[in-house]
Amino acid sequence: MDTLNYFSTRRTIRRYEPSRTVSIELIDKMLEDAARAANTGNMQTYSVIVSTDPEEIARLSPAHFNQPAITGAKAVLTFCIDFNRFNHWCRINSTEPGLNNLQGFTWGVIDTSIFAQQFVTIAEMNGLGTCYLGTTTYNAGQIAETLGLPSDVVPVITVTVGYPAESPELQERLPIGAIVHHSRYVNPSDDELREVYSEKENLESSKQFVKENNKENLAQVFAEVRYPRAANEQFSRVYKEYLKNQGIAL
Amino acid sequence: MDTLNYFSTRRTIRRYEPSRTVSIELIDKMLEDAARAANTGNMQTYSVIVSTDPEEIARLSPAHFNQPAITGAKAVLTFCIDFNRFNHWCRINSTEPGLNNLQGFTWGVIDTSIFAQQFVTIAEMNGLGTCYLGTTTYNAGQIAETLGLPSDVVPVITVTVGYPAESPELQERLPIGAIVHHSRYVNPSDDELREVYSEKENLESSKQFVKENNKENLAQVFAEVRYPRAANEQFSRVYKEYLKNQGIAL
Repeated sequence: MDTLNYFSTRRTIRRYEPSRTVSIELIDKMLEDAARAANTGNMQTYSVIVSTDPEEIARLSPAHFNQPAITGAKAVLTFCIDFNRFNHWCRINSTEPGLNNLQGFTWGVIDTSIFAQQFVTIAEMNGLGTCYLGTTTYNAGQIAETLGLPSDVVPVITVTVGYPAESPELQERLPIGAIVHHSRYVNPSDDELREVYSEKENLESSKQFVKENNKENLAQVFAEVRYPRAANEQFSRVYKEYLKNQGIAL
Repeated sequence: MDTLNYFSTRRTIRRYEPSRTVSIELIDKMLEDAARAANTGNMQTYSVIVSTDPEEIARLSPAHFNQPAITGAKAVLTFCIDFNRFNHWCRINSTEPGLNNLQGFTWGVIDTSIFAQQFVTIAEMNGLGTCYLGTTTYNAGQIAETLGLPSDVVPVITVTVGYPAESPELQERLPIGAIVHHSRYVNPSDDELREVYSEKENLESSKQFVKENNKENLAQVFAEVRYPRAANEQFSRVYKEYLKNQGIAL
């Protein structure tokens, strides 16, 4: 594989070859390599639950609103913050851990994400397709119950895996100059910001999206349909309550 | 480069060739590729501030306790959650964003981490050495002031970069079987957990660490010296207050 070409052309894959399974041995080997990525203090406060059995995947799917990426997946990996292992280690060594706060949670999300992303890169370089499911933090309690997660283990990211059965167009990104700042943050003017978003807004798919949702512009689709404040706040309350029940107070 | 060999042998690099700079053009190109990694709803709620000027790096260093990895770095990348750009786009489009809550924060940390990790992988595959600094969430306010970050832009991760001037030993990891669970989470017994940590505890460096700190065992060093509850809670209060001042209520 042309390594550098891979990075500039990577795509999320949501449809997988129905007849081609992904071996557990391959997944485990890729996870072992992924765990070599950096993590906070080498505490490795994460775990991953691998589901390859179609019935297990079917049981997980409702928590992810039965998106096609999961219902057709050959493997589903649920990446979790895991304080349980570290806490248990502390307790059998006559000491008390102190990770169940905002710093511990933030390190946990960072380290779990780095681990998941390293797995995704390795999997894609091995010819697999992957998709991140953003629904994991919506229904953490339901996922935890399905996977038998103990206290202090919190689902953060789900990645679906299979051999690609689609070749989607490269998805647009904002101009990199809007993301990268040299020396100091540069805050664009209204006109400069319009320019930053103009390619995204002028895509046919974006125009279709605006029309279907009866909105005036793409920003309204994002802020009022896809990620409306009321839903974000409701899911925030649910996730915070779930974390609190795990003993993690933000 | 042997791609698969890279993943199984990657190392954090904290010392860099003093006379070998890293060009801004190379960094920008690598960041452009890194931004092709997945992100929530393709909202790209992140920014990165690139510091290559030695005086700028010197000004950032105290917030990271002047660790050698930053004082000797040829480039310092501060990866931030950026709601400012998205919020600004919403406002010029007559709509109200709703990301300033726990869900938005969690997505922001995930997406910023994925972006940073993709950059790290690309940089290392280009022969550079990198080091994550976990101090970013300790001193976010100080970093924000140094980099001129506006409201709604929150530092999460710092990565230092340079050409390697050291070849450290491969750092140990817990046995992968303790991290990966098949179908359901498996909670180890006390004896099984002792076995999981035995290699880590028996390293000469760990024994030295225990002795230097006058502790009985390695878990006590982690829970009482490196990451004590009182410090984690204090830094959590500071970070939460900082987030609140950015309008992000957890």
